[in-house]
Amino acid sequence: VKVTDLATPALVVDAAALEHNLSVMAEALPGTRLRPHVKAHKCSELAKEQLRRGPAGLTCSTIREVDGLVAAGIKGEFLLANEVLDATRLGELVAGGASILLAVDSEETLTAAIDGGVRQIVLDVNVGLPRCGIAPQKAGALAYKARKAGLDVRGVMGYEGHVTAMEVTKDRQAATATAMELLATAAADVGGEIISAGATANFHLNTVATEIQAGSYVFMDSAYGRMDLPFRQALHILATVISVNPRQGYAVADAGLKAMAMDHGNPEIDGSKVWFLSDEHTTFSSEELPVVGDRIRLTPGHIDPTVAYHDRIHILEGDRVVDTWPVDLRGW
Amino acid sequence: VKVTDLATPALVVDAAALEHNLSVMAEALPGTRLRPHVKAHKCSELAKEQLRRGPAGLTCSTIREVDGLVAAGIKGEFLLANEVLDATRLGELVAGGASILLAVDSEETLTAAIDGGVRQIVLDVNVGLPRCGIAPQKAGALAYKARKAGLDVRGVMGYEGHVTAMEVTKDRQAATATAMELLATAAADVGGEIISAGATANFHLNTVATEIQAGSYVFMDSAYGRMDLPFRQALHILATVISVNPRQGYAVADAGLKAMAMDHGNPEIDGSKVWFLSDEHTTFSSEELPVVGDRIRLTPGHIDPTVAYHDRIHILEGDRVVDTWPVDLRGW
Repeated sequence: VKVTDLATPALVVDAAALEHNLSVMAEALPGTRLRPHVKAHKCSELAKEQLRRGPAGLTCSTIREVDGLVAAGIKGEFLLANEVLDATRLGELVAGGASILLAVDSEETLTAAIDGGVRQIVLDVNVGLPRCGIAPQKAGALAYKARKAGLDVRGVMGYEGHVTAMEVTKDRQAATATAMELLATAAADVGGEIISAGATANFHLNTVATEIQAGSYVFMDSAYGRMDLPFRQALHILATVISVNPRQGYAVADAGLKAMAMDHGNPEIDGSKVWFLSDEHTTFSSEELPVVGDRIRLTPGHIDPTVAYHDRIHILEGDRVVDTWPVDLRGW
Repeated sequence: VKVTDLATPALVVDAAALEHNLSVMAEALPGTRLRPHVKAHKCSELAKEQLRRGPAGLTCSTIREVDGLVAAGIKGEFLLANEVLDATRLGELVAGGASILLAVDSEETLTAAIDGGVRQIVLDVNVGLPRCGIAPQKAGALAYKARKAGLDVRGVMGYEGHVTAMEVTKDRQAATATAMELLATAAADVGGEIISAGATANFHLNTVATEIQAGSYVFMDSAYGRMDLPFRQALHILATVISVNPRQGYAVADAGLKAMAMDHGNPEIDGSKVWFLSDEHTTFSSEELPVVGDRIRLTPGHIDPTVAYHDRIHILEGDRVVDTWPVDLRGW
């Protein structure tokens, strides 16, 4: 199959850029120093590629992601780095032999873990992002309760998501250090061997975490592309130009709001200016307008919620489609 | 099943509000005056409810929507109100007995219609929105070519999408009138009985169109909710509070960027202030914070790309889930 045969809109991944991203990260964070986050790609085939390069486990943000990885026959230690109030499905997977760590940050989520049959947890610690996570000074007490209830408390996690949008490396480094001081304090109180944190934005700047939960590095997006990171833009949205208006100087491609997320703003098109998006359209202008039928590539602003709109990813070597992977971990 | 049994995040629809919206629209635009747009809900069960109330046809924005409606056994005349460069799948459906009208706005899309085996078209006319559509004064010539090639030219369509965000009714009315003057001119040149246009925003203000392509009225969203429209907010995103931080005064619900579209901004939560969204979280504050485990409802800013993230819609009568409909028309 050639790329020209693909129906559009479609997610296309450059195999060489993907390989570059996977191997650069595997060298920077060998073995268990990396616990790749599958939420960026929601694709068990790609999770296998990540695990082949060293990691012993994966990070997930939904029960469905854990469930889907197990269903795909993937062996590894899955960290659900999120709070849940019904851990029944996770408990069933544990009973079936899956290795699952669950984040807890409150009495309620601890109770849910116990009631659901989960046996291993990490304490999710608030390190500055106004989201989930127990206050660092309270983590030790909750860990004590968890151990008393018979759970295996493997350590802590803390997501410093408030630093990942800082485009200046120095700022990101300083903010990471501040956040990780909080996590280190909690880790000392909680015990266990795991200190899980980090992201693509600071995978090389976080020196406290024993493992980094990076996800976006596999594909990258225009937001991360503005930082000095050693990863390449591997994923694009392939679209077809379906209408051109030379008088008003614009063209229209058949990829819109249902093909990409907009929380980081408009997508980018090389050499073009994006005007606006509709449900199934992107209107854009460029010095030399394309003609109807031309194929173009858009770079989305935010990769994770973009991939979640698609049910498959096409892997390209040049113009050849060498593989098509289902985005099988979508939904909840 | 009770609503409390639903896993979150989930799309929930109040049956009474939906019934209100369907019947108000059916009374305002009886019979073929309405050609409901399925892109708002992508759900063939709901399309059936719309057709039961009078319309003879439906509007679609993707080949997949047309395909899915036919696969669901729905009889009706389907207008694909969008340009395509490969009409093969549509032609196969036509050969199988489906009644399909396809929009064309250029030589290329006309050729695609002919090559694909589509037999009935409408001319898509640009009425002011910088998107698809042929210039009004050129529509007649393209219609002539189409008829010469043996196609049945049923009329024109023109989407005045640039007026749908105008919150003041008078402005919307005036801009609609200007746009429809252009469409009426083209209609006179093109011939045929169909003048298809309009949206939920101006279903009652567009007096030129023979049929209105309204979609959002079934569910509504916070953007349309700010206009003086007779429809009720029928759809919400049900979420669970998974973490609360009383010291910093916020709570976190388990519905985020992958559960709703952000192109119209943050969702709304009654009595609360939304801080920000992450992939799977919404952080918000309110005078009285909820407790972990509470269920809340979010109103998305833009309904169409929100529904496209979900694979089912739950219909509620009070606290009872009376039906669950697959969102079966997603993808392309």
